[in-house]
Amino acid sequence: MLQFEQWNGFEGRLWKEEVNVRDFIQKNYTPYDGDESFLAGPTEATDKLWGRLQELQAQERANGGVLDMETKVVSGLTAYGPGYIDESMKDLETVVGLQTDAPLKRAFMPYGGIAMAEKSLTENGYTPDPDMHKVFTEYHKTHNQGVFDAYTPEMKAARHSHVITGLPDTYGRGRIVGDYRRVALYGIDYLIEEKTHDFNNCGDGTMYDEIIRQREELKDQINALKGMKAMAASYGFDISKPAKDAREAVQWLYFGYLAAVKTQNGAAMSVGRVATFLDIYISRDLAAGTLTESEAQELIDHLVMKFRMVKFARPNAYQQLFSGDPTWVTCDLAGMGVDGRSMVTKTDFRFLHTLENMGPSPEPNLTVLYSSKLPESFKKYAAKISVDTSSIQYENDDVMKVYWGDDYAICCCVSATQTGKEMQFFGARANLAKCLLYAINGGVDAKSREQVGPAFPRVTSEYLEYDDVVAKFDKMMDWLAGLYVNTLNLIQYMHDKYYYEAAEMALIDTDVERTFATGIAGFSHVVDSLSAIKYAKVKVIRDETGFNVDYETEGDFPKYGNDDDRADDIAVWLLKTFMDKIKKRHTYRNSKPTTSILTITSNVVYGKYTGNMPDGRRAGSPLAPGANPSYGAEQNGLVASLNSLTKLPYGWALDGISNTQTMNPDALGHNEEERVNNLVNVMDGYFDQGAHHLNVNVFGKDKLIDAMEHPEKPEYANFTIRVSGYAVKFIDLTREQQMDVISRTFHERM
Amino acid sequence: MLQFEQWNGFEGRLWKEEVNVRDFIQKNYTPYDGDESFLAGPTEATDKLWGRLQELQAQERANGGVLDMETKVVSGLTAYGPGYIDESMKDLETVVGLQTDAPLKRAFMPYGGIAMAEKSLTENGYTPDPDMHKVFTEYHKTHNQGVFDAYTPEMKAARHSHVITGLPDTYGRGRIVGDYRRVALYGIDYLIEEKTHDFNNCGDGTMYDEIIRQREELKDQINALKGMKAMAASYGFDISKPAKDAREAVQWLYFGYLAAVKTQNGAAMSVGRVATFLDIYISRDLAAGTLTESEAQELIDHLVMKFRMVKFARPNAYQQLFSGDPTWVTCDLAGMGVDGRSMVTKTDFRFLHTLENMGPSPEPNLTVLYSSKLPESFKKYAAKISVDTSSIQYENDDVMKVYWGDDYAICCCVSATQTGKEMQFFGARANLAKCLLYAINGGVDAKSREQVGPAFPRVTSEYLEYDDVVAKFDKMMDWLAGLYVNTLNLIQYMHDKYYYEAAEMALIDTDVERTFATGIAGFSHVVDSLSAIKYAKVKVIRDETGFNVDYETEGDFPKYGNDDDRADDIAVWLLKTFMDKIKKRHTYRNSKPTTSILTITSNVVYGKYTGNMPDGRRAGSPLAPGANPSYGAEQNGLVASLNSLTKLPYGWALDGISNTQTMNPDALGHNEEERVNNLVNVMDGYFDQGAHHLNVNVFGKDKLIDAMEHPEKPEYANFTIRVSGYAVKFIDLTREQQMDVISRTFHERM
Repeated sequence: MLQFEQWNGFEGRLWKEEVNVRDFIQKNYTPYDGDESFLAGPTEATDKLWGRLQELQAQERANGGVLDMETKVVSGLTAYGPGYIDESMKDLETVVGLQTDAPLKRAFMPYGGIAMAEKSLTENGYTPDPDMHKVFTEYHKTHNQGVFDAYTPEMKAARHSHVITGLPDTYGRGRIVGDYRRVALYGIDYLIEEKTHDFNNCGDGTMYDEIIRQREELKDQINALKGMKAMAASYGFDISKPAKDAREAVQWLYFGYLAAVKTQNGAAMSVGRVATFLDIYISRDLAAGTLTESEAQELIDHLVMKFRMVKFARPNAYQQLFSGDPTWVTCDLAGMGVDGRSMVTKTDFRFLHTLENMGPSPEPNLTVLYSSKLPESFKKYAAKISVDTSSIQYENDDVMKVYWGDDYAICCCVSATQTGKEMQFFGARANLAKCLLYAINGGVDAKSREQVGPAFPRVTSEYLEYDDVVAKFDKMMDWLAGLYVNTLNLIQYMHDKYYYEAAEMALIDTDVERTFATGIAGFSHVVDSLSAIKYAKVKVIRDETGFNVDYETEGDFPKYGNDDDRADDIAVWLLKTFMDKIKKRHTYRNSKPTTSILTITSNVVYGKYTGNMPDGRRAGSPLAPGANPSYGAEQNGLVASLNSLTKLPYGWALDGISNTQTMNPDALGHNEEERVNNLVNVMDGYFDQGAHHLNVNVFGKDKLIDAMEHPEKPEYANFTIRVSGYAVKFIDLTREQQMDVISRTFHERM
Repeated sequence: MLQFEQWNGFEGRLWKEEVNVRDFIQKNYTPYDGDESFLAGPTEATDKLWGRLQELQAQERANGGVLDMETKVVSGLTAYGPGYIDESMKDLETVVGLQTDAPLKRAFMPYGGIAMAEKSLTENGYTPDPDMHKVFTEYHKTHNQGVFDAYTPEMKAARHSHVITGLPDTYGRGRIVGDYRRVALYGIDYLIEEKTHDFNNCGDGTMYDEIIRQREELKDQINALKGMKAMAASYGFDISKPAKDAREAVQWLYFGYLAAVKTQNGAAMSVGRVATFLDIYISRDLAAGTLTESEAQELIDHLVMKFRMVKFARPNAYQQLFSGDPTWVTCDLAGMGVDGRSMVTKTDFRFLHTLENMGPSPEPNLTVLYSSKLPESFKKYAAKISVDTSSIQYENDDVMKVYWGDDYAICCCVSATQTGKEMQFFGARANLAKCLLYAINGGVDAKSREQVGPAFPRVTSEYLEYDDVVAKFDKMMDWLAGLYVNTLNLIQYMHDKYYYEAAEMALIDTDVERTFATGIAGFSHVVDSLSAIKYAKVKVIRDETGFNVDYETEGDFPKYGNDDDRADDIAVWLLKTFMDKIKKRHTYRNSKPTTSILTITSNVVYGKYTGNMPDGRRAGSPLAPGANPSYGAEQNGLVASLNSLTKLPYGWALDGISNTQTMNPDALGHNEEERVNNLVNVMDGYFDQGAHHLNVNVFGKDKLIDAMEHPEKPEYANFTIRVSGYAVKFIDLTREQQMDVISRTFHERM
């Protein structure tokens, strides 16, 4: 059994016998059911550093969104020496480490795709380095090139038409959460030792391809661990041994995360579930009198400040998909242990409190793992933060715990993976709204008029017949699911080959479980369209070529989002049918197929490529985001809308079911206390029924319109809203996306 | 059906429906059974160019073996502009194209291993480029690094102790023969079209790893074909369409081969079977009066001159294994068609005649595919060339045709692959002599005294008991075969991943058959040792630690190489047993396992790492090369020795059974005619019995000793001898290897 003096005072045995952070947490954490009154305000150092950072952020915005970019140095663990927010204030930083050599400077990360890396530079006025161009075109193939080398014409067409969209084929796939806590708890040397043990026990000597691949990956992981040590050493820290106190624990953990964001540029680079873990160190130091509450809060503030600084170089096309420069530094709080104890600690409060100490911020993507059984005081504090800042999201710990235990983390918006035991192959989404139109038009795309799907017979009847459309849709969805899964198989293969996440995987068990994520876009529009066909009469409008271009609906029909089983049953059927068609396919590395109903902000772009729908949605207009009901469909208030969502079984969409709602403050209550209490009640009811996720926004439409028209007002500088799966500064959205948010349903009543 | 005006006058249909060079040859070639009297001497251009090249070769030798090396430009199809033997004489070159920008300048080829590439530079006094070092260590992993990342400690130990040796893990694996004739017959555009067709039909849409890999490989092949066009264009040739005449056919074919040696640095980079093919073009031009015999010979002379110029950068350790800077530009002549017609054409004579027009030369490695049914005049001409130059080798077409048909080529020394239909995973060899010593000493290495093999019980009896030793050897060989095959699985995987032969594979069918080559070293010593144990009494000498260090043999015993079944039966048993143990293993990409009995010149190095043997061989002394009987073992003349070899079934060692013999000119006859006739008779008898291979040297020991002592004598400048599997200029051998050659058996009688 391992023993380190750094572990003095820690209980338990199993986590000393093997790498097992969960066991360490369970044996050592102290639940907290008090209120927020213990919290400390920002220290002078925090104010100064955050002030400086806000200046830099203002410069960044004034510069058009980018402060500085690297053109030549290839990002890597030790590509740069140490960097600080401000050299003249570096002693104030209790948590150090930047992605590059300067704050907010975006690194050059070509492995995912040199084209994307160079486009990001040129579109921001930087000149790509010709030597690096040669290296990453002639000498080293990138992930992006590998994928496009192997794509079929059918895949390219489906991608081009956006019936499959948002694929991680031009940069990092992201969504892998290393167990960064391991660096703090064990130190790098023991982690190397364990990975070396795994390497020595990898395979029985027969060298099948998968064994060879794993052996090489393990060696890459070991090299990454060595690189982390060297990186930390450049900042003057020796992370070879366990962290001895809270400050080191925070710093060691951050170095682990920093290794990830120095080597990968996935859309979502989440940090995981760290609050309860760090609380153990803070509690020990507080008890020993070596740390004050103010110092403890400063540590968390400074760690969060670092998470707020994570940036990647992105081209314009990316910004259109995911507006507001998000990085999904998702950081999970609360949750209940499988033993029934709350996992809320004072440090969970401290993380939420950063939104008060340093104001609202979209990053890190603070996520409360919600259960009605959480301590009331914590639920209320979180609700208060929501009412005040609209910066946090909630996910149902009760349903997730069944599948993922009590040490999972959210790896993007709504996707859970067991920390240190799982990784996800991110898979973006299929646009089922387009797929329904393909079914009606025999695989011909409404926008390009090209034959993208198979040329099955199209609908030629005057009115859409439900059985006919469902049969055609079933067949087209089967085609799409097959193409989609195989496109992802190819992408994941190439990512492993050309852009393997060695640093993140080094902090995950060797016998990792892999989930194969897929996703659905256009969910509500398919449901409502099928409902219209079934319950109303939908007449087809054809153009001169006989193409089905539009629909006239006679009569009323039930819509998803009103707690009406007639529509909601179609929603359940749709999810199950799609998932069945995904599941039956071969998936890369025998990964476990999952799906999500999640669009993030890309619902706007996806909508642009989607024609008129039988539910009345106009061609080109945004799709409803995630699993949200369609704009205007919700006629029966917030609770009815939430009830529709609760009917979708989480187990059928284990990658998450995203729901974003905006409540008028007045609808929630007449004062803050009422609003807080009502919000807690709404969430208790919603999540107790088994719904998965809720993005909570509390503001009125007027405020958004004012912010859109007057972004220069100081109160809007950090005005943050929740969009599908993440938070964003409202003024960082494109006008088109601002209009989309404004046009969403604002619940005026419960 | 394809039609090109360049094909006017050519017969046949199938080769116009698909890529099928064999069908083209069979439908169009003209067998020739006349003598060599038609041959033309060298043209003035040939003399001038060859004269210049000899000056360069002399400078190269004076420089210590290397004329010039590239340090910065990474070799590739279009890495350089055009290069010529001599700019001032470039109009004299009827076949153009150099590996780099200057003659005999060695390219920088880091993909197989940057360490090897840099060692080659530093050991020759050049300084590696630091930028390239960074690129091929930090940004792009090389084959060598991939292999060493994944090796097990057991593999490293076996490699270090040389019980498995000569593995292709530090540079290109070589041994792949593209069907370079396709470039001439079809032109690049059609080949691209066909590979694109294959790409479009690669897999049914389900993306299994092997399908994804193949799709990417096909795209790499298509890119390589495009690169060949660009490379040829830099020399002023448009190779997009078929060659229109003999000159273009020779040039197009050479461009195909040049693409291979610009992109790969395998030990063996063979050119294949091209004589009969080219003869069709030459015959057509001769008949049309557009080409004279002198011009035809000049084309072949210039093509061969280019083959004589192929060079790779090698470190000293490589030179010790394969002395004399060989490149195995193996070029096959003659053979019989499956329809019974001789495939000898005038161009087969023209190739042999290059050894007269330009003197002896080790490269290209001219190989006569021998059958007693070949035209007498050709057999005699080849024998005459052997008697005069000792520069060619013979392989049994009758036995090979059974397995490989009539369009195979030798891809190194003795390894056949069907041209354009197969590729080989080269696998070097296992040292079975060491393996026998491991069996006797329980897996402990006699040289290092380290436990390399498994710690099975060692022999502790006073005398070696046959059944005990065979049982122990069987078990140890089983261990070795398993380790060996899996080491190769890993190497081949990494080579495909990091150093795929896109240019060569672009000229091979997409549904390629793969052979998995293994090899045996120390063959005769194992056979003779087991014979000694069985038929004499072998007493074990132990040192103070109880280690079995030497053997005293009491009584006589039969030795392999004397046509004595008692020894030869052991040889047959050994081959079969080893092959059984290879065959039962999983082999990479479901390749077909084969083995060879072949050591090349590495028998000297292998012997250094091998201890005393029960057959009396002393520790450190060279092993007998290939399948040769041990030095001094052959007591009954050449024919008895050859008879022993004929008992080894070729079908059990489909990668080849190498036999190198040296005959005193006087033993062969009193004048050239007698010598030629006797040599033909010996070969007819030897090959009719089913033996596979014969390296023929005709000279006496005195000549070798004189050449060793007086390398400066002009008659030795190009004095070429056959060693195991290739030819070499005797004065280019190390003194140690010269001594080894001198100590071999010189048959003084038939």
